[in-house]
Amino acid sequence: MNAFLFTTKSTADGILEREFTVNGVPGVLWSPEPGADGADDVDRAPLVLQAHGGGNHKKHPAMSGRAARLVRGCGYHVAVLDAPGHGDRPRTEHDEQEIAALFAARAAGEPEGPIVVRYNDHLARTAVPEYHALLDALQQLPEIGTDGPVGFWGINMGTAIGVPFVAAEPRITAAVFGQHWPDVLAECAKRITIPIEFDLQWDDEHISREEGLALFDAFASTEKSLHVNSGRHKELPRFEVDSAVRFFARHLGRVVNASA
Amino acid sequence: MNAFLFTTKSTADGILEREFTVNGVPGVLWSPEPGADGADDVDRAPLVLQAHGGGNHKKHPAMSGRAARLVRGCGYHVAVLDAPGHGDRPRTEHDEQEIAALFAARAAGEPEGPIVVRYNDHLARTAVPEYHALLDALQQLPEIGTDGPVGFWGINMGTAIGVPFVAAEPRITAAVFGQHWPDVLAECAKRITIPIEFDLQWDDEHISREEGLALFDAFASTEKSLHVNSGRHKELPRFEVDSAVRFFARHLGRVVNASA
Repeated sequence: MNAFLFTTKSTADGILEREFTVNGVPGVLWSPEPGADGADDVDRAPLVLQAHGGGNHKKHPAMSGRAARLVRGCGYHVAVLDAPGHGDRPRTEHDEQEIAALFAARAAGEPEGPIVVRYNDHLARTAVPEYHALLDALQQLPEIGTDGPVGFWGINMGTAIGVPFVAAEPRITAAVFGQHWPDVLAECAKRITIPIEFDLQWDDEHISREEGLALFDAFASTEKSLHVNSGRHKELPRFEVDSAVRFFARHLGRVVNASA
Repeated sequence: MNAFLFTTKSTADGILEREFTVNGVPGVLWSPEPGADGADDVDRAPLVLQAHGGGNHKKHPAMSGRAARLVRGCGYHVAVLDAPGHGDRPRTEHDEQEIAALFAARAAGEPEGPIVVRYNDHLARTAVPEYHALLDALQQLPEIGTDGPVGFWGINMGTAIGVPFVAAEPRITAAVFGQHWPDVLAECAKRITIPIEFDLQWDDEHISREEGLALFDAFASTEKSLHVNSGRHKELPRFEVDSAVRFFARHLGRVVNASA
């Protein structure tokens, strides 16, 4: 049994935001504001789990912004955890060593990939069981339940956590991934058969085209879409968020409200 | 001066359809039905030129269906010509020879690419000046004019015609291409700098991944997006039509009406 506890609750711009801990790990759940339909309870709706990128946290604008599009655009619930060593969670000595190694490589102009790949793999080994427990706990909420569709959305480190999580989690029925090296992840991707949307940057200074394409190619999904855009690692266009929202709307149900 | 003549006019489901000839070449222009705003004249709006695929024609469902999405969804005008040897245009002896060669290769299980590449190049040399003349003529219509944005949308043979056309046509400001070999076209693509959306099939039995990616890579556009989907040559997903419509809405202006 997981220890799940809501710790804060606030509402703004039509979105109910509730922070929580699950087995002590801090997270946030965004939902449509109750009462719009005259009832006081939170509406039952599909759920999308997000995982944030390296160096970010659960309420980084990339997370809250994507969540707002899913909540206001589709009426979904959206949840995300702080990754180990990120956000409100303490860094271990190992975290500090790996971050120092990354900064040293960056300063020396050396490839960041080998460090990021091994550190993300290390973090994912802790984060993946946390996401399984998160889903168990959220499905106990009446507004989510055990029979609704569930999606997953994570880019960069969110993909490093998401690919092994989704490979082992039959409750996830559609996922958006992208921008990661195939090392470690390709073997997990071969076990994933659900619909996938995958983002790559064509001029990524860290991940080569061959590496990015190799990870996309590894997914066993019958339906998979690759979106490549010109630009560097951090220049993923904003319109890919719109595309991901429509992808979830296609697979989890509900019409996108484009003006939201 | 081009000889431009409307030959038929009909209205159905909110769409005005006018067939025409330009210098004797048959085409069709779809527009929003006039009168919705109380006025009798056809509204001024952006224009998208389409080019159809090999073996098809100007009013093939792929053309009329995409046009309906652009007309009803964005209020655009959409025009397409029959390619040489296609639709209402006569086949030459050379056309018959090339089609026979294609069918023979198909029956023998030999690669179709070399025949399609050379035949499409042959057709494009005739079709490209016809598209320049089409644009000249349409810009004389008050509902289109010379100062509105113009897009181009052509996949397969439509890309074989569209890439050399757009490379030489500064009036085109955004284009959707896809599913063609890079031979012949890559040199033209290097001169194209406008925003591009490009479709590929990951399991195309005719066009290899390397060939498809090479053509995408050749475009000089600062903003270019590649959409790769699992599936064979003819299995381009219907949702890529939605994506192309939103691409044009972003670049030519006007909001997509998703329910249209």
